[in-house]
Amino acid sequence: MTALNTDAPPDWIAADWGTTHLRLWAMRGGEVALKRSCDQGMGRLTPAQFGPVLEAEIAQFGMDLAGIPVIACGMVGSRQGWAEAPYRATPTDPRTKLIQVANHAARPVYIACGIRQDAPPDVMRGEETQIAGLLAQTPDFDGVVCLPGTHTKWVRLRADQIERFQSCMTGELFELLAKQSVLRHTLDTDGLDLAAFDAACAEALADPARAYGGLFQLRAAALLDNLDPTSAGSRLSGLLIGWELAAVRDLWAGRTVALIGSPKLAALYGRVLGANGVATQDYPTEPITLAGLHAAWQTIGACS
Amino acid sequence: MTALNTDAPPDWIAADWGTTHLRLWAMRGGEVALKRSCDQGMGRLTPAQFGPVLEAEIAQFGMDLAGIPVIACGMVGSRQGWAEAPYRATPTDPRTKLIQVANHAARPVYIACGIRQDAPPDVMRGEETQIAGLLAQTPDFDGVVCLPGTHTKWVRLRADQIERFQSCMTGELFELLAKQSVLRHTLDTDGLDLAAFDAACAEALADPARAYGGLFQLRAAALLDNLDPTSAGSRLSGLLIGWELAAVRDLWAGRTVALIGSPKLAALYGRVLGANGVATQDYPTEPITLAGLHAAWQTIGACS
Repeated sequence: MTALNTDAPPDWIAADWGTTHLRLWAMRGGEVALKRSCDQGMGRLTPAQFGPVLEAEIAQFGMDLAGIPVIACGMVGSRQGWAEAPYRATPTDPRTKLIQVANHAARPVYIACGIRQDAPPDVMRGEETQIAGLLAQTPDFDGVVCLPGTHTKWVRLRADQIERFQSCMTGELFELLAKQSVLRHTLDTDGLDLAAFDAACAEALADPARAYGGLFQLRAAALLDNLDPTSAGSRLSGLLIGWELAAVRDLWAGRTVALIGSPKLAALYGRVLGANGVATQDYPTEPITLAGLHAAWQTIGACS
Repeated sequence: MTALNTDAPPDWIAADWGTTHLRLWAMRGGEVALKRSCDQGMGRLTPAQFGPVLEAEIAQFGMDLAGIPVIACGMVGSRQGWAEAPYRATPTDPRTKLIQVANHAARPVYIACGIRQDAPPDVMRGEETQIAGLLAQTPDFDGVVCLPGTHTKWVRLRADQIERFQSCMTGELFELLAKQSVLRHTLDTDGLDLAAFDAACAEALADPARAYGGLFQLRAAALLDNLDPTSAGSRLSGLLIGWELAAVRDLWAGRTVALIGSPKLAALYGRVLGANGVATQDYPTEPITLAGLHAAWQTIGACS
């Protein structure tokens, strides 16, 4: 719990409620008063537990937050979450549409609707709020938004509309291969060998089919050549990101790319895109998420 | 334990000792007298345990097998196994070279050496014995041997030499994605939807880069279109096998392919290769492994 400002009482609560974590911010308009985070993610809760968990976590702020609304985004709105916030179909304005949770007496709770694409099928839930935050900070953005992570999203955004998007399982594949596959004996994922990353990424981008064979080569190179574990981890990261970039080349080629993600991942994506002649802009995750939730709060503020 | 023949005493024991299992056959020349299998694989044993485990398992045959030699292949010969049977470098004759385990008083135990390729780095251990078995059954084979499995091998074999080979992690990737990733909610891997397999495999082979995006689409199609779990599992299998075939096209294109693997997997690979104009020949795993171990036994028989 971090106290950032104590001038006036908060008037709403922002929530990023994903599969593994719940992040809460007590907000005073667009300013953060207090924030906290816990591991009570959607993945471990039954529908009946969301309300009590939310109120218990809000109580931990240790100040009077009675009755003020919560604006939430993320997997809390999935079918397995607290209340289903239905997907809106592309093309659509990413600025957040909310549903209100029924039967939560303590306060009004609103959840952002996800976005779906029907052909080819794809879904996002949570990222739409970050993209709304981007539009709040950079009106008229025309380009592609890349949100690297477990399921990286590439989103074509133009004239305030998400035209189409593509998800890639790069983060999850990296974790599975690095932690659960035969490569786990071979890889260290704490450090970073930029030369190894760059080389593998360029190889995969130039010839993604052949890169598939590069996975087991990491194990063989460790056995035969004592490949350094950090270099092996960076090569795996490079192969997967290069592969992903090859898969979505039609989205990023010749466009500006806004990167929303962890600094480490955003730097890797920015590095490769830059090497391929693409200008990138970094948008740190927390401020952009709050900007999106704030814009959503303003829409309900008008009628509450 | 299955009794197949009781005419004369066995004169050697064949062993396929991999990461997860130990398979033993009491052999009378080229004929199986008895066989058994257990889960005492290399992965759960310390070096000192291999000898006692082997003798305990042989004792379970319930017949006099005292002193006759064991010929083993597989991960038992790895650095983490019983005794390291060093890799031989390509190009090399795949017919088995053996090392003898030191300090096992009960009987002579021989382990087949694996094969390595230095550039690009690759290794096999166990498959060399199956390829030796193929050569015993089909002398002068000129083509490519495909051994689908956890780490599928594609091996160029000509004039009794392994010229080069390529491993692909297709089987392991399939298991990780089907059982551990977000796709686990979406897939059933028991059944088979051949139309879904064929379509996904053709897509991935035609455009492997784009196929990368097809992974998360399986989840999205389940959420949005209620994609049938069996179809989703078959699509995943098709995407990965198509991807692999694209990665090793230079190996199989225009050549005869010998398939050594489980009937189900071999049938899938044979189906796709056939659709791409490649003739395949099936070699069931157990007979080909025994043929390779038998050929190796004959080499030590001459000097024991």
